[in-house]
Amino acid sequence: MARNTSVKADHNAPPVTRMLAEFVVNHPSKGWSAETDREAHRTFANWVGCAAGAARHETVDAAVAGVMELAPAAQASLFGRDEKVDITNAALINGISSHTYDFDDTHLKTIIHPAGPVASSAYALSEFKGLSGRDLIDALVIGIEVSCRVGNAIYPDHYDRGWHITGSTGMLGSAAACARLLKLNADQTQMALGIAASQPVGLREQFGTMTKPFHPGAAAKAGLMSALFAKHGFTASTRALEAPRGLMQVFSEKCDWKEITERLGETWEIALNAYKPFACGIVIHPSIDGCVQFKAQGITPEQVQSITVRVHPLVLELTGKKTPKTGLEGKFSVYHSCAVGLIYGQAGEHEYTDQVVNDPKVIALRDKVQAIVDESMPEDAADLELVTVDGKRHQVKVAHAVGSLEKPMTEPQLKAKFVGQAQATIGQEKSEALWNWAIDISSKSSLA
Amino acid sequence: MARNTSVKADHNAPPVTRMLAEFVVNHPSKGWSAETDREAHRTFANWVGCAAGAARHETVDAAVAGVMELAPAAQASLFGRDEKVDITNAALINGISSHTYDFDDTHLKTIIHPAGPVASSAYALSEFKGLSGRDLIDALVIGIEVSCRVGNAIYPDHYDRGWHITGSTGMLGSAAACARLLKLNADQTQMALGIAASQPVGLREQFGTMTKPFHPGAAAKAGLMSALFAKHGFTASTRALEAPRGLMQVFSEKCDWKEITERLGETWEIALNAYKPFACGIVIHPSIDGCVQFKAQGITPEQVQSITVRVHPLVLELTGKKTPKTGLEGKFSVYHSCAVGLIYGQAGEHEYTDQVVNDPKVIALRDKVQAIVDESMPEDAADLELVTVDGKRHQVKVAHAVGSLEKPMTEPQLKAKFVGQAQATIGQEKSEALWNWAIDISSKSSLA
Repeated sequence: MARNTSVKADHNAPPVTRMLAEFVVNHPSKGWSAETDREAHRTFANWVGCAAGAARHETVDAAVAGVMELAPAAQASLFGRDEKVDITNAALINGISSHTYDFDDTHLKTIIHPAGPVASSAYALSEFKGLSGRDLIDALVIGIEVSCRVGNAIYPDHYDRGWHITGSTGMLGSAAACARLLKLNADQTQMALGIAASQPVGLREQFGTMTKPFHPGAAAKAGLMSALFAKHGFTASTRALEAPRGLMQVFSEKCDWKEITERLGETWEIALNAYKPFACGIVIHPSIDGCVQFKAQGITPEQVQSITVRVHPLVLELTGKKTPKTGLEGKFSVYHSCAVGLIYGQAGEHEYTDQVVNDPKVIALRDKVQAIVDESMPEDAADLELVTVDGKRHQVKVAHAVGSLEKPMTEPQLKAKFVGQAQATIGQEKSEALWNWAIDISSKSSLA
Repeated sequence: MARNTSVKADHNAPPVTRMLAEFVVNHPSKGWSAETDREAHRTFANWVGCAAGAARHETVDAAVAGVMELAPAAQASLFGRDEKVDITNAALINGISSHTYDFDDTHLKTIIHPAGPVASSAYALSEFKGLSGRDLIDALVIGIEVSCRVGNAIYPDHYDRGWHITGSTGMLGSAAACARLLKLNADQTQMALGIAASQPVGLREQFGTMTKPFHPGAAAKAGLMSALFAKHGFTASTRALEAPRGLMQVFSEKCDWKEITERLGETWEIALNAYKPFACGIVIHPSIDGCVQFKAQGITPEQVQSITVRVHPLVLELTGKKTPKTGLEGKFSVYHSCAVGLIYGQAGEHEYTDQVVNDPKVIALRDKVQAIVDESMPEDAADLELVTVDGKRHQVKVAHAVGSLEKPMTEPQLKAKFVGQAQATIGQEKSEALWNWAIDISSKSSLA
């Protein structure tokens, strides 16, 4: 039988499984800058808001119903819901929930959504074991470092092949975070990473279905299970990541080992994490940002005669829908998105409901928006000119959209996003309390 | 950034996800020959024996300890153990147990071990729901058809890349079997296969570690979870297997669709299933077969002056160890293997313990075995000549070793293998009763 011998094998890869295991075990608590630590809190809080906000979505209802067939023990809670389930299934459900609206965080270098797989298992375990918020944040920083460094090493080839890189690296980040929380030693942690390496989750073909948010949840669950097995002596290859038949060489032709080995423990991928301010594709974000700024200047919809947006060509290619009829279509309309930005000062999931898309007030403003392609416009920029009924011209130039690394969301913006999502399931007051708890999580001595 | 555009995409693949889903739902109960149905019973019984036999191995102990951290509901039982756990974790543990000694069944065309991922979830579900043995056997035949046909379509490229094909196709077979048992409709079954497609398990790098048997167990669990989710309306891509970014094109360059589409429901892969008679590499099997035949002729170890085995070159290359010191080394010694074959009439896991390998009686006979390479000898054949102390010559020519498709294990041989394994954990009497139950499973009206 003809065998494929063209698959290249690198027999000289550095022992990255071991190196990562030692890093996970030995790196000191809070062994990074105050800025990085703050970013970790923002990452955690943003994840909580996303999970709470989508908690009553039909995707999460279906997943919870599936899990309930197992009569799980009430070990850990689900954000925005009353059920309690075992820690592996809490990781699964919170992970699904946090990615359901595609509104979570993004590691822009790899387009990994890093919190879902890592925070979902780390939080379930911390809650069940009564660990501290400090333990949790440490595990989050370290787990995300593991999954994003592996991602850096294999991106873009791995992603181009069709893997959903969030789930296919996330089980490693989850295993790392859980190994840290379980205080496994380096040998056990190496095994946890090894067991997890056999369980990559996720295909890009699933985009647009419930299985997309399933990916971070299943990765979280796989990583936690791997750590629990390793704790009890279960073994795996010591070179499960880097061997010729280990995970990375099996599913990517690009394996740039130095992305893992260089300055490990000195630089932090979580510091490069970004949060989506608006619940739609990133190409429209500069235009919405500009409209939100008009609102902040005090301009009301009634005053508007016209809005002209100069945009990168991709904007009209991807989001040129003039007359959207449904919430989902609204996400592909720069016109609708600009209108809600000016009316509501935000463009969260609730500005993309069927109801809002068909609201006459929104339609009236939407029809006053013009978009003009400007080949010289950068992808994360837009120039807006608004003419009021009194004939006055107002201009906003957005050089970098809010939510980019150059113009990160401020903490009030992050809080507004959080409350905007979570209030739909738990109300305004509880949402604000939940934000205060999440953004200050490392001050809690026990998460039980 | 440089992107890999060399990944070929086939946009014209037939809708195999849908075709398999309809097959799973619509194929009639026992819609195959009596011989195929008998093979399904043999496959099931062999799987039970392997799972029971390894149930007290440290691999299984570690896995059970990991699962017990979740305080699982007592929904389903574990062969050879007292604990009961939820159905997904019963699938996981029985799947691990059944592959721990590498002594289970083999679909020789793909070297998939088909029972582990499929029987482990199907049995847990059937037991919990009180389904009939007939339901179980139907699900087993159909689930194995799904995983082995997908395997046929992507083997050998997929395997050569480093995937452990048992776990990376097994989640599909498990999802198919569970969808059938849950009586999902074709749409739901298509979703179950789709959700499972995002969860391939297993790297060849793990061979030699506990994570190897973890693969069929985790695949069984993933498939069952996928079916439970699909039951409650969870969605996935309708073309999760065949789309350009679907599972098969993502992890194999070879995708021979007709291996799935042609004569689906007319030919049966389970009919091609084989069972290992001896707990060691397949190359020594003809030599052991010959020695077992000498014993059957009434020759005792004391009568032996010399045994000369003419073998394929691979035998000495792989298993030429003259003086093994441990049980594991014994598996790589044609000399030890021939000795136990003649002394015990079998070469199961218990003939490969440290104790047996160092038994003076075994060593004495082992030292009388000579192996001679014969370039013309086929891989599954051997010629043996035994000279007794009275100078008499005895010859056995093994054209095809027992356990091959040409010379399948007889039912008494399968039973002896079963009892030989299971008695270590549950004793002789219970082992025989368990065999009788398993080989006649379709007569049971409820497995609860």
